[in-house]
Amino acid sequence: MNQAYKELQPYLERAMAFRTALILIEWDNETLAPVQAVSYTAKMAGAVSAAYQEMITGSELTTRLEACEQEEGLSEMEAAVIREVREEVDDLSCIPPAEYREYKELVSESGRIWAKAKADRDFLAFAPTLKKIIEFEKKFAAYRAKDGQKLYDVMLDHFEKGFHIEQLDQFFNQLKTELVPFLKQISECGTVIADEFLSGEYPEETQKKLASLTAKYLGFDFSKGVMAESAHPFTTALHNHDVRITTHYTDNISSALFSVIHEAGHAIYELGIADKLTLSFVGQGASMGMHESQSRFFENIVGRNDAFWVPLYERLQELFPEQLGNISREEFVAAINKVQPGRIRTEADELTYSLHVLVRYELEKMLIEEDLEVEKLPEIWADKYEEYLGIRPEHDAEGVLQDIHWAQGAFGYFPSYALGSAFGAQMYAHMKKNMDVEELLKKGELIKIREYLREHIHQYGKLRDSRQLIKDMTGEEFNPNYYVQYLKDKFRTLYQLSN
Amino acid sequence: MNQAYKELQPYLERAMAFRTALILIEWDNETLAPVQAVSYTAKMAGAVSAAYQEMITGSELTTRLEACEQEEGLSEMEAAVIREVREEVDDLSCIPPAEYREYKELVSESGRIWAKAKADRDFLAFAPTLKKIIEFEKKFAAYRAKDGQKLYDVMLDHFEKGFHIEQLDQFFNQLKTELVPFLKQISECGTVIADEFLSGEYPEETQKKLASLTAKYLGFDFSKGVMAESAHPFTTALHNHDVRITTHYTDNISSALFSVIHEAGHAIYELGIADKLTLSFVGQGASMGMHESQSRFFENIVGRNDAFWVPLYERLQELFPEQLGNISREEFVAAINKVQPGRIRTEADELTYSLHVLVRYELEKMLIEEDLEVEKLPEIWADKYEEYLGIRPEHDAEGVLQDIHWAQGAFGYFPSYALGSAFGAQMYAHMKKNMDVEELLKKGELIKIREYLREHIHQYGKLRDSRQLIKDMTGEEFNPNYYVQYLKDKFRTLYQLSN
Repeated sequence: MNQAYKELQPYLERAMAFRTALILIEWDNETLAPVQAVSYTAKMAGAVSAAYQEMITGSELTTRLEACEQEEGLSEMEAAVIREVREEVDDLSCIPPAEYREYKELVSESGRIWAKAKADRDFLAFAPTLKKIIEFEKKFAAYRAKDGQKLYDVMLDHFEKGFHIEQLDQFFNQLKTELVPFLKQISECGTVIADEFLSGEYPEETQKKLASLTAKYLGFDFSKGVMAESAHPFTTALHNHDVRITTHYTDNISSALFSVIHEAGHAIYELGIADKLTLSFVGQGASMGMHESQSRFFENIVGRNDAFWVPLYERLQELFPEQLGNISREEFVAAINKVQPGRIRTEADELTYSLHVLVRYELEKMLIEEDLEVEKLPEIWADKYEEYLGIRPEHDAEGVLQDIHWAQGAFGYFPSYALGSAFGAQMYAHMKKNMDVEELLKKGELIKIREYLREHIHQYGKLRDSRQLIKDMTGEEFNPNYYVQYLKDKFRTLYQLSN
Repeated sequence: MNQAYKELQPYLERAMAFRTALILIEWDNETLAPVQAVSYTAKMAGAVSAAYQEMITGSELTTRLEACEQEEGLSEMEAAVIREVREEVDDLSCIPPAEYREYKELVSESGRIWAKAKADRDFLAFAPTLKKIIEFEKKFAAYRAKDGQKLYDVMLDHFEKGFHIEQLDQFFNQLKTELVPFLKQISECGTVIADEFLSGEYPEETQKKLASLTAKYLGFDFSKGVMAESAHPFTTALHNHDVRITTHYTDNISSALFSVIHEAGHAIYELGIADKLTLSFVGQGASMGMHESQSRFFENIVGRNDAFWVPLYERLQELFPEQLGNISREEFVAAINKVQPGRIRTEADELTYSLHVLVRYELEKMLIEEDLEVEKLPEIWADKYEEYLGIRPEHDAEGVLQDIHWAQGAFGYFPSYALGSAFGAQMYAHMKKNMDVEELLKKGELIKIREYLREHIHQYGKLRDSRQLIKDMTGEEFNPNYYVQYLKDKFRTLYQLSN
């Protein structure tokens, strides 16, 4: 190990302990903590967060970081860690500590405010909080901006390096141009897919059993992971030996089932990161988009694939004999792929999903770059849903309040969902050249698919960025055509459309 | 607020955030974290713990603490906080960091060695480790000792201020003189109490329902608390708005039931602490003994009281119609109070419980003050059990290896269990002068009992020590006669003995 790098380690270790403690506090807050603890938890999180910031920006760490930056001949990992730490130092040193702490307390509390507003279907109860969050986000982005960078570009960079407004406008325009008319074509083609049987009396206990079995089948390792419940399913990783997923149970069997497959995809990514990266600054997934590529790969390309259900469907029928006993596998697979423009992103079918993201991308851009008034969000939201999906929300809970992201200050995150889907489609096209993916799914050999992804993507953690990983794996630059083509092929077949 | 005190606050806040984060990490570790996370969690906890110590012993905090100590006219709370922080500073700064680290490594390893020795029923496999722990404990107590204090007194002070060997010798001698012959009288009186029905097929799901109902009935506020499962039941409080209890379920209904009532007692204490103390250095229960007084008050004086079951027993029968449908309330209450000298402290009845503690007190004192050879423990343990309880352990696992406390270095902790029971009995005698406790229990008006305890004990947190609290509440000094009298009255009636 490089000597200067070695001397930096104790400070990184301490910083990482604070960061991991914060992740745990947040996990606990979302899944277990009693409601009345909120403001006190926020205070505690604020103090640990301030300690983290001081450690990162303090001269003990930064002088040693500078020493490392003078070094030559660093290993790939050493160089990557130094790059990540430098980014974190720059990110945090440009923000006045008092403001950072105030912000942290705000977003630690805002989740509950959002949840209550959502329960009450009352956006205006959340609007003042959202306004404050946006003000902080813009202020912080202005602190971080380099060479006249646009504020929203600064935010986007945080989640997906190298994907800016320019690239995303192009990407989303392609989706809009190709998919909105394609969706219309499907809606008007006359093919009717039955899916009523997915909703009904699906006992929660049996759903829990299914969730656990499915996670195990996909390769989620319960000796390194935990599954719990929360309002909005999510995955969090303390490190690659402690990865936690949540789900929620409804009267629609596909809701919990596919949220588990989705979160298990995130988890499998984190669990696949090489042990030498554990608790280091490159010991997490490469980016949000890369994370979504894995979760959506498992959810859609794997989980909604007919081949995936070949070895499993009878077992599913045994769990729910009354509900699915008379439904054939073909009917079930058609139902879980049914295109049905809806109001809720997390319940969207694979085709319309990225149109939900498109709405959010356009609104985020307006909020940050065009000073859109927060109070106007519900109406513009509804208008865009009508334009792209042909449907308006009936109230705020199924409109602008449906996602927690903005309540957490995660502006610039949403595009990752669509980018991730596109990354995954490109990986899938590449994998099919090297292995018979459908055949492996039919045989239940998930491990070969998982290992291939681990070898090319997971193990690297944050050592390489998403553009690089895609290029290294597939041999070409990111190309969204694969995604559009994949969707058109799949849904043309399902809906029996001509080319 | 005093100015010097005000300037100290940010440092206390940061320290408290670290301490609370550590409590959360430990809670998570005991109840949820995946098995393979252990060593990484320990690393994280170690780093946060080191940050806590540095904050407590650092000059930023200590110079401001010294300034406060020069101040006059501080409020009761300010003075109490400064007293507590001073103790913590002295505790953490008098031990050379290298020795402390060595000790921490030892006790983090010793739990595993103890557990293996217990599984193997082999005390000698644990003895060398225990010897090392005792050496450290004595060395540390010597560092902390003031004015020629005895080492065991230093340790006792840590758990229960003002209760030293002199007072405890007197206390435990009284228990020995009065209760050992009384127990013999009961064992020989010929009265037989049936309790087989407490064991059997008690479905876990129904037990969980009962646990939740019971906690609520006692006044455990789920909006400020959480109930979970763990190997051994415990209570932990992040602060008075986040108090967490655990239980475990066995085939004996009284096991989970009374562990819930016991832990709810701890929780009600923490939940009753005044809000102005939240997250301060006096925002916890006054002492281990005072804590046990509340948990054992609820468990025994309330929970094993016939009057408590008057409004509840039919509901219990409805939950377990097959198991308890034919058992009268009188039979049930007799069974949960049955005196049965055993080998395991945590399974002891109310009468013999403090005799288990007596054995441990006498042995601790010998280990610390009389240099008793560790190897001789099992034999002396067995002799004392025979003398006081009329029963010898058959192997080390049900003898000297049964408790984890010594493996964790917690010498001086055990007496709190018996002291707490005696505190509770004195409070009970006092309460009965002011209210008809049994009548309140019959009417289900738990709230009046809880409020009375809150008013006189809970709200004060660590503002006052246990001696002071007892004196303020009952109007007299701690007096163990109440405890002895309570036990004799109760069990004379149950076993139909003459006075």
